[in-house]
Amino acid sequence: MTFAEFMEAQTRRVDAYLTRVLPPRDTPPTHLHEAIHYTVFAGGKRVRPIMTLIACGALGGDTEACLAGAAAIEMIHVSSLIHDDLPCMDDSDTRRGKPSCHRKFGESTAVLAGDWLLVYPFEVVGRAAEEGAFSPDVAARVCATIARGVCTSGIVAGQVLDLEAESRDVTAAELRRIHELKTAALMEACARVGAAIAGAPARLSDTAARSARALGLCFQVVDDILDVVGDAAVLGKPTGADSENAKSTYVSLYGLDLARDMASQLAEEARDALDALPESEWLLRGRQLVDYVVSRSS
Amino acid sequence: MTFAEFMEAQTRRVDAYLTRVLPPRDTPPTHLHEAIHYTVFAGGKRVRPIMTLIACGALGGDTEACLAGAAAIEMIHVSSLIHDDLPCMDDSDTRRGKPSCHRKFGESTAVLAGDWLLVYPFEVVGRAAEEGAFSPDVAARVCATIARGVCTSGIVAGQVLDLEAESRDVTAAELRRIHELKTAALMEACARVGAAIAGAPARLSDTAARSARALGLCFQVVDDILDVVGDAAVLGKPTGADSENAKSTYVSLYGLDLARDMASQLAEEARDALDALPESEWLLRGRQLVDYVVSRSS
Repeated sequence: MTFAEFMEAQTRRVDAYLTRVLPPRDTPPTHLHEAIHYTVFAGGKRVRPIMTLIACGALGGDTEACLAGAAAIEMIHVSSLIHDDLPCMDDSDTRRGKPSCHRKFGESTAVLAGDWLLVYPFEVVGRAAEEGAFSPDVAARVCATIARGVCTSGIVAGQVLDLEAESRDVTAAELRRIHELKTAALMEACARVGAAIAGAPARLSDTAARSARALGLCFQVVDDILDVVGDAAVLGKPTGADSENAKSTYVSLYGLDLARDMASQLAEEARDALDALPESEWLLRGRQLVDYVVSRSS
Repeated sequence: MTFAEFMEAQTRRVDAYLTRVLPPRDTPPTHLHEAIHYTVFAGGKRVRPIMTLIACGALGGDTEACLAGAAAIEMIHVSSLIHDDLPCMDDSDTRRGKPSCHRKFGESTAVLAGDWLLVYPFEVVGRAAEEGAFSPDVAARVCATIARGVCTSGIVAGQVLDLEAESRDVTAAELRRIHELKTAALMEACARVGAAIAGAPARLSDTAARSARALGLCFQVVDDILDVVGDAAVLGKPTGADSENAKSTYVSLYGLDLARDMASQLAEEARDALDALPESEWLLRGRQLVDYVVSRSS
């Protein structure tokens, strides 16, 4: 199975699980549920849930049991996209080439759909434990891990810093901090959730988390590079937005060549951490995921 | 100890716990943490966390262990107030006589502070389990219970229906449904969280939940009555807002006298359910809480 086929197959598993646990779009309140389905199935690459499954599989866990954790993190991620796009935040009219949630469903529904997607993951994880997918103490750890990826050391704090940074030049250290919070923290949560469901010892969970953090930062550097050199048609969004908005990026701070070096180096860090884990089919997929993130064109 | 003294003492316990678990307001990102402290300590009546403690105590549990659950629910409640006040929702400039969160800290910070307060409760509950306040399987149940009070059968769905109802007349059944979701569902979660931490059997949890639901609806009917006959100075908000906004309320649908009868009847239902629980000091406080809710002037 090629890596592309692997990603497709895992995406289908995650999507099937999401379809199973989300309330049907035609049940009341239908406007809310339609907004949720619209954004959850808007064509995301599912990097986070697949990373969660890979961490679980590579640490010897049952990836079927891990689907609840993977889906939970994807819902959190989708929530953050909805709220980031709001007029009072980044004010984005489109997302992945389609109208953003508030443009399609109205601002109040977008706020509420984001709220819903922030909290429902904890119901999904709790219910998976009740159904025996994993033990309650794993569920409690998964809930706390996901929450940490959202709050003061996660995406919410990252968005606060990102908005504050808009009005001024940021230092390289500040930019890194923003991306640690906005991207790497939830990626680290993917690894830790997968590890928790696999029942892995703390040492292996930490190693997987180190790889995931580096990959998260790498993901963000590549994002900044693609905004300059990417193909708008392949990306599904206009390029050049960062420089138009005079936004500090890895490219504006370091130039294109150094930014590319940084992306390669972060990918190397991510691979190095993986080398400390036992060889397996899933670990191989983890290495391929690193290659995919650093060389992606969309 | 009078009931007022009891409420004061319990409020101090809840506030002390919240102070302990919230990040200090002067730690970064400070703007976010200040907004969180501002709204969490804005002078709320703490009815929900105290109801959680009463349910736990009345069902034989350790209310000290229950503080995490009580604080978690209060944070969820505060989050819903912040998001409800946003310009795209109810567009309220004040809350409890002070500027609402977005008026004081800006709209983006208000959205993010609300997001933070929706998710942090799950970290608090997970951590309390790690610290041994209750077992992990209680924590998993508490997380799932709180999430249910927020999503499709809770406050988010209620706010969706409430916003939809603004543009038209609603039936009595629709109004009741809105309040079941917006108010009674989270009150029910209080009872179920208290019961879970007390380790109470399902039958007793259901009884406490029935009382809490009736009390939640009673709370809402009284809210509608106070908007007509209340004293703005005591309430800390202007009265007459509902009729100015042509909003359907229990008073507009039934008239003041019938609305008062309904409040009394719902309080009676709440008391009847309590009668099925074993007598205790905490149960007495539960009865007093019902009396307080139905006869409150603010």
